[in-house]
Amino acid sequence: MNESPRLLAAVDMGSNSFRLMIGRVDETMTASGPASQIFQVDALREPVRLAAGLTPDKYLDQPARRRGVDALRRFGDRLRDFAPGQVRAVATNTLRVAKNAPEFLIEAEAALGFPIEVIAGREEARLIYLGASHDAPACQGNRLVVDIGGGSTEFIIGSGFQPKLMESLYIGCVSHSRQFFPSGNVDDYAMKQAELAARREIQVLVRQYRGAGWQQAVGSSGTARALAELIELNGMNDNPGEHGITREGLERLKRALVKAENANRVKLAGLKPDRIPVLPGGLAIMLGVFAELDIERMDVTDGALRLGVLYDLLGRSHHEDMRTVTVDQFMRRYAVDRAQAQRVRNAALSLLAQFPEPPDELREDNLALLGWAASLHEIGMSISHSGYHKHSAYIATHADMPGFSKTDQARLAALLLGHAGKLGKLSGSGRFLDWRMLFSLRLAFVLCRRRTDSPLPQIRVRQRADALDEGFEVRLPRDWIDGNPLIEYSLAQEADEWERVGKRYKVVYA
Amino acid sequence: MNESPRLLAAVDMGSNSFRLMIGRVDETMTASGPASQIFQVDALREPVRLAAGLTPDKYLDQPARRRGVDALRRFGDRLRDFAPGQVRAVATNTLRVAKNAPEFLIEAEAALGFPIEVIAGREEARLIYLGASHDAPACQGNRLVVDIGGGSTEFIIGSGFQPKLMESLYIGCVSHSRQFFPSGNVDDYAMKQAELAARREIQVLVRQYRGAGWQQAVGSSGTARALAELIELNGMNDNPGEHGITREGLERLKRALVKAENANRVKLAGLKPDRIPVLPGGLAIMLGVFAELDIERMDVTDGALRLGVLYDLLGRSHHEDMRTVTVDQFMRRYAVDRAQAQRVRNAALSLLAQFPEPPDELREDNLALLGWAASLHEIGMSISHSGYHKHSAYIATHADMPGFSKTDQARLAALLLGHAGKLGKLSGSGRFLDWRMLFSLRLAFVLCRRRTDSPLPQIRVRQRADALDEGFEVRLPRDWIDGNPLIEYSLAQEADEWERVGKRYKVVYA
Repeated sequence: MNESPRLLAAVDMGSNSFRLMIGRVDETMTASGPASQIFQVDALREPVRLAAGLTPDKYLDQPARRRGVDALRRFGDRLRDFAPGQVRAVATNTLRVAKNAPEFLIEAEAALGFPIEVIAGREEARLIYLGASHDAPACQGNRLVVDIGGGSTEFIIGSGFQPKLMESLYIGCVSHSRQFFPSGNVDDYAMKQAELAARREIQVLVRQYRGAGWQQAVGSSGTARALAELIELNGMNDNPGEHGITREGLERLKRALVKAENANRVKLAGLKPDRIPVLPGGLAIMLGVFAELDIERMDVTDGALRLGVLYDLLGRSHHEDMRTVTVDQFMRRYAVDRAQAQRVRNAALSLLAQFPEPPDELREDNLALLGWAASLHEIGMSISHSGYHKHSAYIATHADMPGFSKTDQARLAALLLGHAGKLGKLSGSGRFLDWRMLFSLRLAFVLCRRRTDSPLPQIRVRQRADALDEGFEVRLPRDWIDGNPLIEYSLAQEADEWERVGKRYKVVYA
Repeated sequence: MNESPRLLAAVDMGSNSFRLMIGRVDETMTASGPASQIFQVDALREPVRLAAGLTPDKYLDQPARRRGVDALRRFGDRLRDFAPGQVRAVATNTLRVAKNAPEFLIEAEAALGFPIEVIAGREEARLIYLGASHDAPACQGNRLVVDIGGGSTEFIIGSGFQPKLMESLYIGCVSHSRQFFPSGNVDDYAMKQAELAARREIQVLVRQYRGAGWQQAVGSSGTARALAELIELNGMNDNPGEHGITREGLERLKRALVKAENANRVKLAGLKPDRIPVLPGGLAIMLGVFAELDIERMDVTDGALRLGVLYDLLGRSHHEDMRTVTVDQFMRRYAVDRAQAQRVRNAALSLLAQFPEPPDELREDNLALLGWAASLHEIGMSISHSGYHKHSAYIATHADMPGFSKTDQARLAALLLGHAGKLGKLSGSGRFLDWRMLFSLRLAFVLCRRRTDSPLPQIRVRQRADALDEGFEVRLPRDWIDGNPLIEYSLAQEADEWERVGKRYKVVYA
């Protein structure tokens, strides 16, 4: 422990703006033991409007990519002295849907200098709630958090720090403004259509959410913050001293916009130029939220996602990794044979641990990921035994996995897909695949195939020095293999399979 | 009821041979009420060897397709007086894996004159057990049934008529013979490798199956029948009067083959010429089965799959449709909101029922399928809420669904994929998609979206007479829609969506 304060940083690549938050971790003593709190020490915002650069066929155009990369370069500059474990960069809806996201992310990571993870809508919702619950006014009972982003809107009901319901819908202030107010023109008809379109999406969760109920409604995004400021600064609440967003405030703001006929012509105190293009869409969605959820008043908090990312990062370093909880839940949900998963896990981890740790590798992270892959490799059997490895990979790719980013899920899915059968099918997984991890998992799978607890002999593995990263050697005791002809046969098959994709694989019995 | 005996027919398009079984249904009175039994009255066999025509890249070659179509034409001739409800034709492994199976099936159905359904491995296993349990000697406790086919081998443990464990593995006598004995040459080494390869596949189920145990082992395919005959007719059992397959009989048969050096040169009583090319592979698999499952002796039954198909067909006509049971199990497994499924189901069925029944339609089957689709439309939410309709379709395509053929599953999956969102994505589902069913399901989905029990008004639907099968009209009461602006909005969206794929969709409020 050194004396300088511990800093963490979150980069939030939203559909409307990119933001950087730097937080200081303060350890405090509470009645129930030591606790950590995060205080914001710096924040940067770049109005990238990434979603505005999305073409109708879902490609990010060049100017938007350029704006994004430039912004990240400036963030990277600010983060120059941060270690990888101190920074987490997450990207949300626009990079979830853009078809050329993978190319853009390579440029983007180079500019930022840290890995970037695309996160799914519900994971975004979980992190938003984690942040909002640390930042919003304390509240007894349930709290509703609504986060209107540029391309998606998250709805969470939770209690204390615990989310209970999470949903992410495909409506956002950038996409909604482009669809219903393309040139900024606002009239009653367009406003009505935009509000109905938002209500139609929100409708699917109304019954469940109203059933759960809440004592406090919180708006947590830049849109909520901007609406609250406009309403307050222009005296649009019934009670001029009131903070937050009210139903009558939203109605007055709508009338002001309709009267001005175009968002660019409206005269309102506190309206920032870069908020203008997304104001009518954001307002329509908020009107839809108030109507469908029957809200009268909403508190506002800001930076919930960034703050949630920081608290999540803090939890991982405190060995409270949400991903471990998720893996355990999935093993239960998909009725995994835990004894077999454990056998494969033990064997795979002991194999990977034998390789020297390359300087750029986060060994702990890789061991964790390999362990999760072993724990979950059979989840696809819940769909069908035949080709179950493909179903395991499908679930890992598409499921809501709290704590996992899309990148984590892609790495996991590549291991699940590749743990059995042909290796040729992995040609598309390149970026997400670590061959040493796959080697360890496949070998463990072969060794444990009989699903019995008979002990394994000492098995030595190494990478061939003559072709680094391109070949493996496995050594087993001759006398043991003589009693296990099926494993001998399977290892010969395994060697053939690796040679087929151009990697050497030597099995030595000694 | 007429006096002529009731006949049912099963066509089994196996990887080695195509077979037709015609059975007579006898109703008998038992202590526990009336029961039906099926007695074989006719059987045809055509040695098509479909799997031998599978190219390395998994296309059926022209000669194999020709042999198959010719065989089916002869079967169709025999079945000329049968009604559609009396015949069920199923295809197994080779048509599960052949990439050009869809084209072939169109020709094949034209030749046979009845629809053909491709069934999954575990459904095949279920039907085999159903047949074997009606045909094999009675037995107390568990029965193991092993069915070595041309391209796959099924393993089932059951008790009475009830299967408990079912598995289908990718080893078969045709594929195994081609891989290990391509020119018919047999020596100790090739036999050993072929047996090890089979054992390696079987290994995955050994622990579970031996744990369950059995009192009787039954071989149920042509391979088992042929092996038993060769062993008996050539006096290879220790006890010359013994029936069935024994371990020592298999060993003696192997020695005879190795001694002859080539399957084509072996001299054995009872060896039929068309059995020769698949004998070494079939023998190696059976040796693997005996070794891994530690079997000493196996009874033999024949025609289990065909007989199972007939009993299943009989059950459907007796309102004991296994598919209903499966749908109910899936609703439980995937934690479906039953109230919502029921709302959508009621609405969808009342809409479809309004269309006149075209002469070639099996209305009852279609209502059943639409009901199942409504019951299961939300199963994909178990994976993820976003894009759940795609996950629902994925599960319906790939899951083991007892009673459902692959064709049933494809029709179901097309409805699940199409029940929400864009229609353009269905361009690939053409053959399996009924537009009236999809129309009914989508409209029900829109009407029930609020997930409440508020009653629906009378809604009239019809197909537009000016463009049969290409347009729809929906009529709702004006006064009801005035109180439901979201449904009005959603129906306008729905109309736009149908127009986008070139189908007219008119909404009338009156």
